Amino acid sequence: MTEMTFSSRSVQAAGQPVSELMAEALAHPELISLAAGFVDQETLPVEITARAQQAAFANQDAARASLQYSNPQGLNELRDALLRQSCQWDDSGIPDQVSNENVVTTPGSNQLLYMLANILLDPGDIIICGSPTYFIFIGIVKNVGGETYGVAIDQHGMIPESLDDALSMLKKRGDLARVKAIYLVPYFDNPAGSTLTKERAGEIHEIANRYSEHNKIYVVTDEAYRLLDFNQTAQPSLWAGDRNLNHTIVVGTFSKSYSPGIRVGWGILPPELITPVNDVKGNIDFGSPNINQYIMYEVLRNGWLQEHVSKLCDHYQQKQNAMLDALDEHMSTIDHCSWWNPGGGMYVWLTLPEIIDSAFDKPLYQATKQAGAMYVPGHYCFPKQGEPVQHNTIRLSFGQQTPAKIAEGVKCLAMAVNSVLSIA
Amino acid sequence: MTEMTFSSRSVQAAGQPVSELMAEALAHPELISLAAGFVDQETLPVEITARAQQAAFANQDAARASLQYSNPQGLNELRDALLRQSCQWDDSGIPDQVSNENVVTTPGSNQLLYMLANILLDPGDIIICGSPTYFIFIGIVKNVGGETYGVAIDQHGMIPESLDDALSMLKKRGDLARVKAIYLVPYFDNPAGSTLTKERAGEIHEIANRYSEHNKIYVVTDEAYRLLDFNQTAQPSLWAGDRNLNHTIVVGTFSKSYSPGIRVGWGILPPELITPVNDVKGNIDFGSPNINQYIMYEVLRNGWLQEHVSKLCDHYQQKQNAMLDALDEHMSTIDHCSWWNPGGGMYVWLTLPEIIDSAFDKPLYQATKQAGAMYVPGHYCFPKQGEPVQHNTIRLSFGQQTPAKIAEGVKCLAMAVNSVLSIA
Repeated sequence: MTEMTFSSRSVQAAGQPVSELMAEALAHPELISLAAGFVDQETLPVEITARAQQAAFANQDAARASLQYSNPQGLNELRDALLRQSCQWDDSGIPDQVSNENVVTTPGSNQLLYMLANILLDPGDIIICGSPTYFIFIGIVKNVGGETYGVAIDQHGMIPESLDDALSMLKKRGDLARVKAIYLVPYFDNPAGSTLTKERAGEIHEIANRYSEHNKIYVVTDEAYRLLDFNQTAQPSLWAGDRNLNHTIVVGTFSKSYSPGIRVGWGILPPELITPVNDVKGNIDFGSPNINQYIMYEVLRNGWLQEHVSKLCDHYQQKQNAMLDALDEHMSTIDHCSWWNPGGGMYVWLTLPEIIDSAFDKPLYQATKQAGAMYVPGHYCFPKQGEPVQHNTIRLSFGQQTPAKIAEGVKCLAMAVNSVLSIA
Repeated sequence: MTEMTFSSRSVQAAGQPVSELMAEALAHPELISLAAGFVDQETLPVEITARAQQAAFANQDAARASLQYSNPQGLNELRDALLRQSCQWDDSGIPDQVSNENVVTTPGSNQLLYMLANILLDPGDIIICGSPTYFIFIGIVKNVGGETYGVAIDQHGMIPESLDDALSMLKKRGDLARVKAIYLVPYFDNPAGSTLTKERAGEIHEIANRYSEHNKIYVVTDEAYRLLDFNQTAQPSLWAGDRNLNHTIVVGTFSKSYSPGIRVGWGILPPELITPVNDVKGNIDFGSPNINQYIMYEVLRNGWLQEHVSKLCDHYQQKQNAMLDALDEHMSTIDHCSWWNPGGGMYVWLTLPEIIDSAFDKPLYQATKQAGAMYVPGHYCFPKQGEPVQHNTIRLSFGQQTPAKIAEGVKCLAMAVNSVLSIA
């Protein structure tokens, strides 16, 4: 028998950065990790979940139904509640052409992102992303044989002119028919902590429409961090600029705003995507975990989500401030270091002097470890094509550590930056 | 803009029989459905689940952990318990070369079947299945561009001589390198209610090894119905013939033995498959729902599963007997009708005279509907290649209806068979 070979998809799925990052974290539990994108375990809603579970089981028939297979597209009551809630977040009514038929629930939003990549992309097809963007999504696209193409961002999200330039270039190159979607994380982006402005959202819709010459270019709005909005800026969703879901795909999840372990995410889909999503879902899991949907339905219905999110925002804002204060104290004196105040989410994006490379095998990371901290090297977050990788970037997470540890971790990093610069 | 086109995978995922079957069932709620493969809602373990949930939340730290992301491969304690339990079912100790590292938990076994198809199959690759076999699996293989190849079965499962003939033919055809696995449902098969004998299991291992010339041919043992063993025959798993997991992949689930809505399944994997499965899983859902794993861990740890399964077996055996009695009463007088006593699971496989076609658009189905019942036409369960489709077959499920309704449903079917034969 010759060497074992697996499928080309399997080869494409291999070597995801998350494996490297997790291995590194597990190997160094003694370090202050500013790397992990996990929510703070202390904040997880044990008491609310117990209450919601009891409420879901109060009625014997509903309890039994929750232990049966779910409707493959998701629990009807939850899909109704998610649609209502999503519109309320935008201070909008439910659009005429949209109903719970457009809503699907998934075990976390990851499954939906995977299904969308599966449905939209043949090998070699392109999704346009921010440069940087959510690195798990880059891996998902790679897994199905697609390509991510990076467009410049700043603290206000993707830059429309850069998007227009990229599409124009792809068109010249003869690749416009390969572009299937533009993927955005418009609220408190992972990794950049950037938030898309309303003006830019409008321009992005216009550009997506204008370049939909060969096929529809979808706009995917991944709103994972939306509710972690510390200053209640309440930006409307990208969906608000395309209310009838001509080309907008809304992706949501309770992983950051409630609990990742409960694995309830959702999508609000243009009509032509409903059947393809249900078809793939029938093969992947035959319906999302049902009991979890009943729990989240009770959490929403009783207003317990809002109660929890308010506390969460206070909690994370303190951590964010600890990180920003420490950056001000230790990094503002170093030339060519920059960052912005995300105002929400869990991440601060740090740009260092260009001569510094933040990769694991480079001096900065080694010096940071020696000082006692760790981070995610920014290069993992850059699409393979388009804007060049910025090796001098770092994703800092304030999700898991206490404010004191965050301050200490940032101090370790600043020491390391100074020591690397002094040698360079 | 031209017509919307989705990926080739999306096209392959379309038109699954389950959609047709569900649409048919939803359109006719007035019929006695002997079609649905759902477990009986009356049996779902509300009280045990509430108890398990409370036990999982009794400790605040564990409760929080259950709301955090799972280890992507699954909760360690549950993976330990599943490994121990699986060996106990075989009256075996844990083999030296196997540990919880070989175990992955998935939201139902469907996700694992999907991941395996993804990892093992490039377009055009082949998985050998029973003819008939689990129709959802046929769809999964089609979704990734693979082919299913059917081998004859009888009430004792896949016939080794037929398997040998099929592989020999595929070898002659030059397609042996395309064969990646043999898929079996060895206990109370869906749809055929057949159970593989120990002797045949040994022969299948030997054949798989012998034909592993170009690449390893895996033996996938899908043990979904294992615990619904009414007569406690306690056949050892196919794994028992390959304890160190050279080529055997064990697939398990609590969907039939406990609750489908809880979505906890598992795999016990050969070592070389662990990393590929984790890689794909990182893209699909980033870890199974965690709270569900904590609940099932408590159910296992406290012996509540066994308690539930005993009741379940009594319950389903009565239904099975009602179906077998009704078949004896109404069908044994019709020439060329045959079935066997499955002794477990949820299905009886019925073969009718060859001139009858059981498809939805043929006279028998229409006559059965008119008489007041519905069933799953057997043709859905036949792989595309290999043994020819038997259009004169039917899958009857005794899972959901009461014994009285089952008797009535079978009577309706027998009337329809008689009326179709009288015209033919």
